Amino acid sequence: MNFQMALAEDIPWRTSVRGFLLDVTGVLYNSGGGRDLGEAIPGSIEAVRRLYAGSSVRFLSNESSSTRAELHAKLTKLGFDIKIEHLITPAPVCAKYLNRESLRPHLLVKAGVETEFVGCHMVDPNCVVMGDAEEGFTYDALNKAFRVLHGMKDPLLISLGCGKFYQRTDGPCLDLGGFAKGLVFATEARHSVIGKPSTEYFTIALEEMGLNRESVVMIGDDIVSDVGGAQKQGIKAVQVRTGKWKEEWANHGSVRPDLVADNLSAAVSAILG
Amino acid sequence: MNFQMALAEDIPWRTSVRGFLLDVTGVLYNSGGGRDLGEAIPGSIEAVRRLYAGSSVRFLSNESSSTRAELHAKLTKLGFDIKIEHLITPAPVCAKYLNRESLRPHLLVKAGVETEFVGCHMVDPNCVVMGDAEEGFTYDALNKAFRVLHGMKDPLLISLGCGKFYQRTDGPCLDLGGFAKGLVFATEARHSVIGKPSTEYFTIALEEMGLNRESVVMIGDDIVSDVGGAQKQGIKAVQVRTGKWKEEWANHGSVRPDLVADNLSAAVSAILG
Repeated sequence: MNFQMALAEDIPWRTSVRGFLLDVTGVLYNSGGGRDLGEAIPGSIEAVRRLYAGSSVRFLSNESSSTRAELHAKLTKLGFDIKIEHLITPAPVCAKYLNRESLRPHLLVKAGVETEFVGCHMVDPNCVVMGDAEEGFTYDALNKAFRVLHGMKDPLLISLGCGKFYQRTDGPCLDLGGFAKGLVFATEARHSVIGKPSTEYFTIALEEMGLNRESVVMIGDDIVSDVGGAQKQGIKAVQVRTGKWKEEWANHGSVRPDLVADNLSAAVSAILG
Repeated sequence: MNFQMALAEDIPWRTSVRGFLLDVTGVLYNSGGGRDLGEAIPGSIEAVRRLYAGSSVRFLSNESSSTRAELHAKLTKLGFDIKIEHLITPAPVCAKYLNRESLRPHLLVKAGVETEFVGCHMVDPNCVVMGDAEEGFTYDALNKAFRVLHGMKDPLLISLGCGKFYQRTDGPCLDLGGFAKGLVFATEARHSVIGKPSTEYFTIALEEMGLNRESVVMIGDDIVSDVGGAQKQGIKAVQVRTGKWKEEWANHGSVRPDLVADNLSAAVSAILG
């Protein structure tokens, strides 16, 4: 497998690309801890501007530690010029799903993120919904969620993504996936994921762009959720060497990206020429 | 399967029993939250006294949220007359194992329990050892352990037991198993368990009693760790209907106890007659 930077002429599929799906954390910016805003990844602000100038673009994020509006405000502060309606995050998608399926969640989410679920019924919960609560993953909060699931005949846990870890400016950090898998182990609950790499989540993005899978490319830093997830949908996928990228992934056992690029800027240049 | 209380004459193997292995939490007592001592399960104090009068007895516990000495002091305060050298807990067993294998742990244990590892080398850790930290399972503490594992080429997690949950006087509570499985998911670490249901742990108890497996019976409230674990070693096993007992287990998919008894007292009466 050749992981050298590909030249434009080496990417035969690039001429069919009409739309770009971009992961956010680790591709546009690296998040900071606590009140730290994090930092834009060099070249990403300009790359997004270039994409907006001539292509269809959506931001497909598993971010659930802030509301969509908060994430949009943060990206704007960092210098990105992005339309909020182009930002797809799992909490609002989940809220719609819960209402459609008559599900009443017990929420285990970061303070503030419960506002995304304002329209949902919460009395007498029949499922647990967990987002990335970060420091909000206390023993007490996890135990409350455990007791709700433990008390159900057919327990159901819905997690907003299921990532292993993400890169923060101060180092790699546990994502919510471990906490979700832990609750599943303790309660033997059914587990649904709303976010990448689920088919439904990619479908929402394609429908919003009005494009078919053959004319879209996903660019992400997570080889399983972003790259593998997109490829399973028949979408071309680029692995960037930013965010949570690990050198071991150059020989990943199950996923082979359609392109590996140093960062978003290099990926956009390689595809648009 | 008949889960009625068996009469003494219905238990053909009872005459060969020379030694008793007792689980502690959920069999002798139910633990309390925080500073709450918990409470002895009715009849258990007398049952232990009766066992000591004529049989060999060891207490085989996965308890790791306190030191062995603290657990012994607590049981004594609750009214149990138990010799500390008969109490087998995973932390001291683990400390010996670490030294034998030249392992240097990063500890994720409840405050105070690190004293069980006084003789171990801790600089430049090459594994993570986790006990039941309860409220000590903060995001920060879990993330520190995650970073240690994430930075290793061949990460190794050792957990002191791997229980799903345990019964506390205020309700069921998450045991360390979910937290261990979560770290394994996030880091793809190898995972060793020191405690029930591992073969080595049962072997220690048999060796200390100087009895073979055919003449020993295990009495526990956990159908997988205690009952299933003992049976895999060829040890007869009694499920008690105290502690974390769930009615669904009467038709458990994979484990069929040799006897089901209402509590420790009833189990001892059924076996000793």
